[in-house]
Amino acid sequence: MKKRIAFISDHASPLATLGGKDSGGQNVYVAEVAMQLALMGNQIDIYTRCEHPSQEEVVLWKPNIRVIHIAAGPKGILPKEELYGHIQEFTAHTIEFMTANQLRYQLVHAHFWLSGMVAMEIKKQLHIPFVITFHALGAVRRLHQGGSDKFPKIREKIEKDIIWAAERVIAECPNDLKDLIQHYQAPQDKIEIIPCGFNPTDFHPIDRTEAKEKLGLDSAYTYILQLGRMVKRKGIDNVIEAFSHAHHALPELRLLVVGGNLATAEDRAEFDRLHHLCIELKVEDKVIFTGQQSRDLLRYYYAASELFITTPWYEPFGITPLESMACGTPVIGADVGGISFTVRHEDTGLLVAAQQPQQLSAAIVDLINNDRKRLKFSVNSLRHVKSFTWKVVSESIAQLYAQCLPQDAEKETITQIRQSFLGSSKTFEKAAESLALGIARLSSKMVSVLHEGKKIMICGNGGSAAESQHFAAELVGRFEIPQRPGYPVISLNADVAVLTAWANDFGYESVFARQVQALGQPGDMLICLSTSGNSPNILNALKEASKAGVICANLLGKDGGEATQFGDHNLIVPSDHTARIQEVQLHIIHQLCALVEQRMANLSRKNEHFVIHNKLIAS
Amino acid sequence: MKKRIAFISDHASPLATLGGKDSGGQNVYVAEVAMQLALMGNQIDIYTRCEHPSQEEVVLWKPNIRVIHIAAGPKGILPKEELYGHIQEFTAHTIEFMTANQLRYQLVHAHFWLSGMVAMEIKKQLHIPFVITFHALGAVRRLHQGGSDKFPKIREKIEKDIIWAAERVIAECPNDLKDLIQHYQAPQDKIEIIPCGFNPTDFHPIDRTEAKEKLGLDSAYTYILQLGRMVKRKGIDNVIEAFSHAHHALPELRLLVVGGNLATAEDRAEFDRLHHLCIELKVEDKVIFTGQQSRDLLRYYYAASELFITTPWYEPFGITPLESMACGTPVIGADVGGISFTVRHEDTGLLVAAQQPQQLSAAIVDLINNDRKRLKFSVNSLRHVKSFTWKVVSESIAQLYAQCLPQDAEKETITQIRQSFLGSSKTFEKAAESLALGIARLSSKMVSVLHEGKKIMICGNGGSAAESQHFAAELVGRFEIPQRPGYPVISLNADVAVLTAWANDFGYESVFARQVQALGQPGDMLICLSTSGNSPNILNALKEASKAGVICANLLGKDGGEATQFGDHNLIVPSDHTARIQEVQLHIIHQLCALVEQRMANLSRKNEHFVIHNKLIAS
Repeated sequence: MKKRIAFISDHASPLATLGGKDSGGQNVYVAEVAMQLALMGNQIDIYTRCEHPSQEEVVLWKPNIRVIHIAAGPKGILPKEELYGHIQEFTAHTIEFMTANQLRYQLVHAHFWLSGMVAMEIKKQLHIPFVITFHALGAVRRLHQGGSDKFPKIREKIEKDIIWAAERVIAECPNDLKDLIQHYQAPQDKIEIIPCGFNPTDFHPIDRTEAKEKLGLDSAYTYILQLGRMVKRKGIDNVIEAFSHAHHALPELRLLVVGGNLATAEDRAEFDRLHHLCIELKVEDKVIFTGQQSRDLLRYYYAASELFITTPWYEPFGITPLESMACGTPVIGADVGGISFTVRHEDTGLLVAAQQPQQLSAAIVDLINNDRKRLKFSVNSLRHVKSFTWKVVSESIAQLYAQCLPQDAEKETITQIRQSFLGSSKTFEKAAESLALGIARLSSKMVSVLHEGKKIMICGNGGSAAESQHFAAELVGRFEIPQRPGYPVISLNADVAVLTAWANDFGYESVFARQVQALGQPGDMLICLSTSGNSPNILNALKEASKAGVICANLLGKDGGEATQFGDHNLIVPSDHTARIQEVQLHIIHQLCALVEQRMANLSRKNEHFVIHNKLIAS
Repeated sequence: MKKRIAFISDHASPLATLGGKDSGGQNVYVAEVAMQLALMGNQIDIYTRCEHPSQEEVVLWKPNIRVIHIAAGPKGILPKEELYGHIQEFTAHTIEFMTANQLRYQLVHAHFWLSGMVAMEIKKQLHIPFVITFHALGAVRRLHQGGSDKFPKIREKIEKDIIWAAERVIAECPNDLKDLIQHYQAPQDKIEIIPCGFNPTDFHPIDRTEAKEKLGLDSAYTYILQLGRMVKRKGIDNVIEAFSHAHHALPELRLLVVGGNLATAEDRAEFDRLHHLCIELKVEDKVIFTGQQSRDLLRYYYAASELFITTPWYEPFGITPLESMACGTPVIGADVGGISFTVRHEDTGLLVAAQQPQQLSAAIVDLINNDRKRLKFSVNSLRHVKSFTWKVVSESIAQLYAQCLPQDAEKETITQIRQSFLGSSKTFEKAAESLALGIARLSSKMVSVLHEGKKIMICGNGGSAAESQHFAAELVGRFEIPQRPGYPVISLNADVAVLTAWANDFGYESVFARQVQALGQPGDMLICLSTSGNSPNILNALKEASKAGVICANLLGKDGGEATQFGDHNLIVPSDHTARIQEVQLHIIHQLCALVEQRMANLSRKNEHFVIHNKLIAS
């Protein structure tokens, strides 16, 4: 089925040049996946932030693909760390555009957490399901970059909300999946591993000599390649240091460092740092910094090199190893993130520890000196990399989309289900206003009953019987405080033998009254759960309790029914709907458990102090 | 304890003149109760709509009482039917005033449903509890006035919300209480009957001759009195018609009709209608229309008359009978609303049917001819009315306030409880987005399992065990469709004998797996409830089910745990909090029950059609 799909890629436009600090893998991913999906016949609109005043709002980029430029904040390029402040505006304008143009998307695919926020709001307002690829995760970034992360602290909380709201989350590799579960407690079955890809038109084997000629590289030397954005976490310093060691054993070795936009201050600073390192290590004439290169030339750099080296501190996925393998150049990569997944150790290349130049240096020397091994890795790489083309990747993504889309027959049901949740949500809001005081007072009364060594009996019918047992289970067992004595609480509907015996011989109307008469002592409490407040066995129990000097409390709904006449405490859920009443009653039960536990714990602490105090006085 | 209390009386200011169409009992009520509460030492601010451009925002009306004029809509008098459109503005400005002046009220007392809307919002935003006196109810008005009610249709729904949100509702009489329960299913124990009152300084016995003189009435005649606003439902026509009959037997009888502002078109029209009626009945020279009279003169009208007559179609309370009795003048009243409560039949006066002029006429003749009875009624009236002074009434109101106010120690708890409800509400909203599709699919699967004659097993531990039984109870019994066969659903944690036998002999880890092995057939379904998804007995049951070809579904929370690996359907509640997860799971259970019931009912209808169709073909 052909679909109309919206990509949200707030900061990474497929139209942006590659290789700048903030344009990298995500731009390629968005562009390539969109192209493959469009080739399958889907219509793709890519929503991205307008970065130039001259950009047209709607650009028809390729057949079936439009790029929609959404105004949000100043119309210039902003670092992605600053985009959070403009995301509400971006969201509002995106939804406006969709609505004004009556665009009925079947699905939204969000890229990066900021776009995930947009997708959540679209889902809430327009009910369009969404899939997310995070590309990078705040918690992981924080672990590796610590204080240097300039994103707002709330990022991780928002990412968690996005995971919950999304239909499915695309993890790019097993490490990504592990991070989602470990740092975000993401529901496992929501996550699907679909890797990034490469484009075989751009990356394929080329004769090494030809490639060197094309780039004007001296054929007398052996080149190894570092390629990627010029930022610290990419570990380019590690590669330079390793090279400086390896160079002693392999004097004909040269290091190509491709990447970095020297027009920007930040890249320039990093370049200066790296250049100084080269001078310090006395390899400044053997390390060739080429700066950022056009995408069309990259395959020549891969092909011209004997090895591709990439040893970042961490790397959510990393497309460059795939590109290198697609050109037949083996990879030595850091055993982190996606690299651990795409590079097969001793099969298509070698995995080394990040930030260990000695280890990397040894690996370089070993491989450069071993032509057979390099050849084997090269052949294996070409075979292995076939499952990572953007075509294969996008087919997996299309399959994932299909799983997320409701069938036409399901749509009405889904609307009904959503309405029902929202109805419940409203009932809880109403209850917050109307029941808070009553719950506070009933919880105090329960505490004083228990504190005086009296017991609490609970009863109900049907669903309320189940909730009555739930209530007793939390109080006899424990709710949130593990190390505490159990409280004397008993559910009168729990004992099937008693219930059936009495119902069969004397009638169901008195099954609870009989137990209240048997067990109830003055000062005990009876809590009745009923949605109507009119069940005969509940009313009989209340009458019996009143006679026996047992305090009566009712959890009710609707108009409270006759039971209200017997209750010293009546908590009436503001709803006419039996199911909604029971749901709020369960919440009340939980609140009562929490309050009773807290207060009983405080009382027992006070008692301990009192005992200690008395002992001190006595001694 | 002295309190700071806000009265909200959107349309009825204590400063307004009495007797106009829209100023009547409520203005008196608000003014008198405020005065009495102020005398007790409370500080009262009365918020009312600004009706004149020259009105000052804050008027110090009496010691301890301020009237706050709130701008909302045009600064002129509006009929109360038009005020609904301005109530949001009134609310916003009221809250602004309270906040800007840092007014910390302990309680809000709202008057009429429009003010109730304001009080609800104040409670939501500022967490101030509120009490409401409705003065009139939409449902009752609709019953009696039908199409002529110009209030918006939503009034009754809003009144119901107000009843739920209010701490307490003041009913003015037993009929009012009955109406609240019958038409609004109001929780009975929330309602307190507190009547309206009268002011003994304004209303007390005066010598009849003296009173007639004061008013310039011819002492040769015997007067009976009709007093009140000049609107149709007051049944003034009924009194005139009865008078025209009675007049035959009592030629010295005259009827005083006090009330009506002849400067307004509506009152003028009603006056014209009544005047025509007098001409038609040939009593135009015996009925004296005095128009609206100043409050200071009213006691003279009561005292000058042998009888006070009031026969409205309905009357929420009706202060005039009290005023009459306070002057020692017996009342003949319609047996409706508050009149049934304040006038004691054959003790302080007579109750007659409304709109029955013959019956009223007979009652008039009977009483006028019976001096002893009138005297007895007069004496009894004076005694009976003592419990209706505004002082007594306001003391009851003050007591009611005290019951609504949280103690200082309770305040923190109440905030905690409210937060907890709102937290739940948010979780339900999140779940609406993340679980709708999954619920739709699981419900379809359950239907196909049941439709193929297979069974569903459910299990859980602790709270989840209770919910598992709740789930089974709804499906074996019925959820919302009463006349249907039970479905083959069984809760595996329900049989205590099986559970304890196996747990004791072989270990608790396999109590569910054993039952799945015993009962499970290929095509059956196992639904596991667990908040963590990691309980060993749940995992063992899932493994056993997978082996036996039983379809597995899980209701989970948090990250879904290991159970997700076995679930053909996993519904993971978007929360980390065990109690919140269980509450949403109960909602999911209810939704599944609703969907399964609906779809099974549709299927069985289709089957019936199919059978009939086949029979038709066969015949």
